[in-house]
Amino acid sequence: MSTHPLESFFWPRSIAILGASPDTKRIRGTLLHHLRGTGWDGRIVPINPSYQEIDGLRCYPSLEAVGETLDMVVIAIPAAAVNAAVEDCARNGVKNVVIISSGFAEEGEVASAQQAELAAIAKRTGIRVAGPNCEGYFNAISRASTTFSPTVERKEGEEPILVSAKRIAVAAQSGGIGFSLFNRGKVVGLGYSYVISTGNEADLTIADFLEYMVQDERTDAVMLFLEAVRDPDRFIAAAADAQRRGKPIIAIKVGRSEAGQRAAASHTASLSGSHTAYRAIFERYGIIEAEDPDEAIAIAGILATCPLPKGKRVAVSTVSGGGGAWISDMLTANGLLIPTLSPELQTKIRAYIPAYGSPQNPIDTTAQGANTGPMQMQTLELLEDADEIDMVVMVSSMSSETRASLDPARVRPVLERGKKPVVAWSYTLPSTFGRNHIAKCGMFLHSDLRACCQALGKIATFAERLRLAHEPPERRASRGKLPEELPPVLTEHRVKAALASYELPHSPDRLARSAEEAAAAAAALGFPVVLKIQSPDIPHKTEAGGVRLNLADTNAVQVAYREIVAAAERYRPGAAIEGVLVQRMAPKGHELVIGVVDDDTFGPVVMVGFGGTTVELFGDVVHRPAPISEAEAAQMVRSLRSARLLEGFRGAPAVDIAPLAALIARISEAAIDHRGRVREMEFNPVILHADGSGLTIADALMTLA
Amino acid sequence: MSTHPLESFFWPRSIAILGASPDTKRIRGTLLHHLRGTGWDGRIVPINPSYQEIDGLRCYPSLEAVGETLDMVVIAIPAAAVNAAVEDCARNGVKNVVIISSGFAEEGEVASAQQAELAAIAKRTGIRVAGPNCEGYFNAISRASTTFSPTVERKEGEEPILVSAKRIAVAAQSGGIGFSLFNRGKVVGLGYSYVISTGNEADLTIADFLEYMVQDERTDAVMLFLEAVRDPDRFIAAAADAQRRGKPIIAIKVGRSEAGQRAAASHTASLSGSHTAYRAIFERYGIIEAEDPDEAIAIAGILATCPLPKGKRVAVSTVSGGGGAWISDMLTANGLLIPTLSPELQTKIRAYIPAYGSPQNPIDTTAQGANTGPMQMQTLELLEDADEIDMVVMVSSMSSETRASLDPARVRPVLERGKKPVVAWSYTLPSTFGRNHIAKCGMFLHSDLRACCQALGKIATFAERLRLAHEPPERRASRGKLPEELPPVLTEHRVKAALASYELPHSPDRLARSAEEAAAAAAALGFPVVLKIQSPDIPHKTEAGGVRLNLADTNAVQVAYREIVAAAERYRPGAAIEGVLVQRMAPKGHELVIGVVDDDTFGPVVMVGFGGTTVELFGDVVHRPAPISEAEAAQMVRSLRSARLLEGFRGAPAVDIAPLAALIARISEAAIDHRGRVREMEFNPVILHADGSGLTIADALMTLA
Repeated sequence: MSTHPLESFFWPRSIAILGASPDTKRIRGTLLHHLRGTGWDGRIVPINPSYQEIDGLRCYPSLEAVGETLDMVVIAIPAAAVNAAVEDCARNGVKNVVIISSGFAEEGEVASAQQAELAAIAKRTGIRVAGPNCEGYFNAISRASTTFSPTVERKEGEEPILVSAKRIAVAAQSGGIGFSLFNRGKVVGLGYSYVISTGNEADLTIADFLEYMVQDERTDAVMLFLEAVRDPDRFIAAAADAQRRGKPIIAIKVGRSEAGQRAAASHTASLSGSHTAYRAIFERYGIIEAEDPDEAIAIAGILATCPLPKGKRVAVSTVSGGGGAWISDMLTANGLLIPTLSPELQTKIRAYIPAYGSPQNPIDTTAQGANTGPMQMQTLELLEDADEIDMVVMVSSMSSETRASLDPARVRPVLERGKKPVVAWSYTLPSTFGRNHIAKCGMFLHSDLRACCQALGKIATFAERLRLAHEPPERRASRGKLPEELPPVLTEHRVKAALASYELPHSPDRLARSAEEAAAAAAALGFPVVLKIQSPDIPHKTEAGGVRLNLADTNAVQVAYREIVAAAERYRPGAAIEGVLVQRMAPKGHELVIGVVDDDTFGPVVMVGFGGTTVELFGDVVHRPAPISEAEAAQMVRSLRSARLLEGFRGAPAVDIAPLAALIARISEAAIDHRGRVREMEFNPVILHADGSGLTIADALMTLA
Repeated sequence: MSTHPLESFFWPRSIAILGASPDTKRIRGTLLHHLRGTGWDGRIVPINPSYQEIDGLRCYPSLEAVGETLDMVVIAIPAAAVNAAVEDCARNGVKNVVIISSGFAEEGEVASAQQAELAAIAKRTGIRVAGPNCEGYFNAISRASTTFSPTVERKEGEEPILVSAKRIAVAAQSGGIGFSLFNRGKVVGLGYSYVISTGNEADLTIADFLEYMVQDERTDAVMLFLEAVRDPDRFIAAAADAQRRGKPIIAIKVGRSEAGQRAAASHTASLSGSHTAYRAIFERYGIIEAEDPDEAIAIAGILATCPLPKGKRVAVSTVSGGGGAWISDMLTANGLLIPTLSPELQTKIRAYIPAYGSPQNPIDTTAQGANTGPMQMQTLELLEDADEIDMVVMVSSMSSETRASLDPARVRPVLERGKKPVVAWSYTLPSTFGRNHIAKCGMFLHSDLRACCQALGKIATFAERLRLAHEPPERRASRGKLPEELPPVLTEHRVKAALASYELPHSPDRLARSAEEAAAAAAALGFPVVLKIQSPDIPHKTEAGGVRLNLADTNAVQVAYREIVAAAERYRPGAAIEGVLVQRMAPKGHELVIGVVDDDTFGPVVMVGFGGTTVELFGDVVHRPAPISEAEAAQMVRSLRSARLLEGFRGAPAVDIAPLAALIARISEAAIDHRGRVREMEFNPVILHADGSGLTIADALMTLA
């Protein structure tokens, strides 16, 4: 394989610590202490003019004094001296630096300028810089450490548990959390390749690290902790590459709440961006979003030990009836199915379990199952072999320090066939012995019931998405620019004119500037009609009395015209009124909303939801980044909870969503063509005709940048 | 205090084990082994004719041979011999037995009869029986053990952590889970009073144990694991008693999913009942529902160490910016608020933290805060004293085996003032040292982020409910019985007639049996009118073409009458048609649904939701057991997510919900009066007039038992 530019960053043969200290209570001292204690076999070079040696290791007064080219320099000196030190490194042929020092952009204006200068040095000299204000990294394979995080220390007498040879890489925009995801996973047997804390990202960003980890063959899955993605294009390219390779990315994104955004902003000096845009990207590229640490670890644990499931049908085998009922509820709540087993399979299982057990699913082998391991083994073998089941969960108590029932020698070959995921949940807190025992079986042992079930649910969805992944459509030639001269807010008739080249479905309408014009327009279009005020100052027409539906004759239209205009003038005196749009009344149908927001990070993101109040009250909306193919647009619509309304709800006929999917795709194309110019678009409502005759765009609004 | 009948059950001075064995691999052997090993100081009496002594303890051939009256006999002999043994116990003055033996109702018909006989023995002799098919109990104060659960064993060299002097009692309808809730809590420092596994509940039920625990002064909170409540009245009485005393009950209820119900049914030979009815009871009596083990433990941990919060405003103090952002998101997702602190408070905090930290909330003391304990202390003291904050969460890493920053001697007096809840979350996995250290501070240390935040959210809701608790209304005299002769399904006009004495709001209507009668009725009532088919065979009128709205004149009414009847006959040939109900068209308004189901366990449960599709698509409904006061009914309506529609949504005027609350209360009264007779009632839609002129019951249906 061709070598990635960051190879020497993560796999240095020599590491110098600039500012090294013998005082292990200080960060500079801890850096050296960890590097020496982790068992890495490269060359360690302390640099500090104050010492001749530190703890038996020769200490150099300066980089020059070392007299050789170093792969990596860790910088832990006061912020004011950092930039000069980096220049010095570049001059001496150093390829990579990790800057631990704080006091850059997160401190204010002057420090911010200093960080910009640092970025410029990196760009000019080609040296790669991680940080500043970061916790460094740990290479868990070579055991190279450039971090002061205590989580990399080896504890005496500790026998590490390892559930599989697969490795997770962690890249985090918070050092504390990045290394906590290492600490939490290590204890329960996860293998890691790298953990990197990205700090202020003056040069190397989380997208650079993601790119490295995705192509790295020593890494099987990537875990991200995100506050704000600074180079979205590189991030997306890496995510798409991961999806093509089927390499899972587990992402945690903070800043969903106002307080979370405040915290992230004060922490990394960057806005965390809109969570819906992130979610749109995650959904498009099959990134698995984890919401808490235990869930992230549970997902990684399953991915490290199991093949992807082929479906959502789970069999539960339990030694506790209560535990079986509990996990069944929780699995169901996470979108999984616990089907009653076929009579054939039940008969086979029945032969092994006590009379007061149950072979239905959950399979209750009763407390006797815990004492008689073979019972669980036989059940597991039968379930693993059964096509009617996609995943297996073994429920038992693993708190004993001395006893466990499953036999690793018998379980391993079953799991190695790799037919379906098999995981274990202990309803008691697992002992170290229990964890080790289950790890020897090649299984991941869950303690957290909710995390286990959420993880299984999300992985089933991930697997499904991977099968049905939609590449964004080919980039087409732009259908032309918007005219230069446009008002900042475009009303419906102007939106339709501006987007004419996109050939959106168009139900005939005319703009009227008097009651008489309105009446004539209506007569030409055919009754009944609807009248809608057109004013950039009145975005909420209905509230302003600016809409009249179902007008049946000329007289009604004339009256309505005058009333509408009067109401609009009352509602917002002095409002610019462009006229009243007369449109043929749309057939009855389902009202939907299609919106586009040009996200600061990821560009245009398209939103689809049902009209009325479900968007606001229940948040039943779905987002994807533009452009969107028709196939993906159809998938968006179908993923709404309200989509049942289109599928023949309460005896109503099902409605073809193809016209809707086509419209979404077309709007997404326009959003891309006019990226930067168009701030927001909203088509609300779009009426999908119940009679299958297509759709009507019943209102539209566009805001320009 | 007067002595509760179960005092001698939980606090025996002597315990005999019938079927005791020296083989500690068998349940009978484990029972004795645990009882001897836990450190209980009462009299232990093994009974088994096969042994003269077991491990140095004299073994008796029979109960008679013991020659003294025993407080408690644990029975672990084959099922067939159990009933005779219980008779024997009763004859010898034994007050209580715990039956471990399996093979009763959970095994089928013959065994079921045996269990019925056992219940009869208990009733006849007055002996109290726990089980059969249970795991016994553990008294964690006296250390009396009647269980074979390994979780009660003392581990060598184990130094128990204890976060507070408060104690939790656990009563569980699954032994495995009951003792796992003990095991999981003990490790993180919770104190317990009792853990009891209730088994098949031939005599003593979980409600009996709940009653004991609620009145027991050694117990500060109760944790329940429920599959099916067998004596709802006693259960409700105990729950109401707990609410009066302010003693929290944490309940886990399984059987929410179909698979969970299947599991619970096969496990305890009882149907788990409708989850909505349980939830209605939980909400009425302020029972805190936990959904997973970690959440249950987190709730108990906070209750054991904190006063109840006075509101929902949380301050987060963190040494990790990323951790602060993360927990802010999660707290917000659980209904809590993270307000920006007042400028005054920010100024005070600013004085203690580094320049690149943040005093806003989350308060980011930065990694320096972790190294400099006083920074966290000062922040904590300021937050504890601030009226603008109701709860405090301290975020740090507690994975070190040697270092921790908070000073117990300084934290304890702050917490002992008891002004507000203070909890800690460690983003790394806490070490035993870390747990101990935080326990010494008098705080509960959370490891599970989600469980911590869910628990705080639920406890804030619990505290609010306790302040606003609604007693059910006084039982009024019945307003009379339903007539003896009624069809099994009552259509709207019959429902209104049957419930006439409840004086439900009534908009004038008339039943018409011909087009002419309909026209005359409409003319008398005043136009516009609505026509509705009345047929017990057509519950879904609209689907059948059986409803016509907004009929403006006599002619329209006549045409509509004929069309409706024709459509109904097409829809269901041979349907019994009682006529067509003519009603004045209701003013516009909000459509709601009020339903009642006579639950097999808890009797009539009233459901309220909004009409249209929100009930089915989004499950936005609320349930309470009948009868319901008007105040509680108003609270029900306000708790719906859709309630925003009534509060002046999108510029619409707010609507007075008093008429709706009155209707719900009246319907709940009817449900109680006709309990057993009425299976279901549905008022759908009830139109709450937007103009404030009251409401219209626009349809009603009743199904009799």
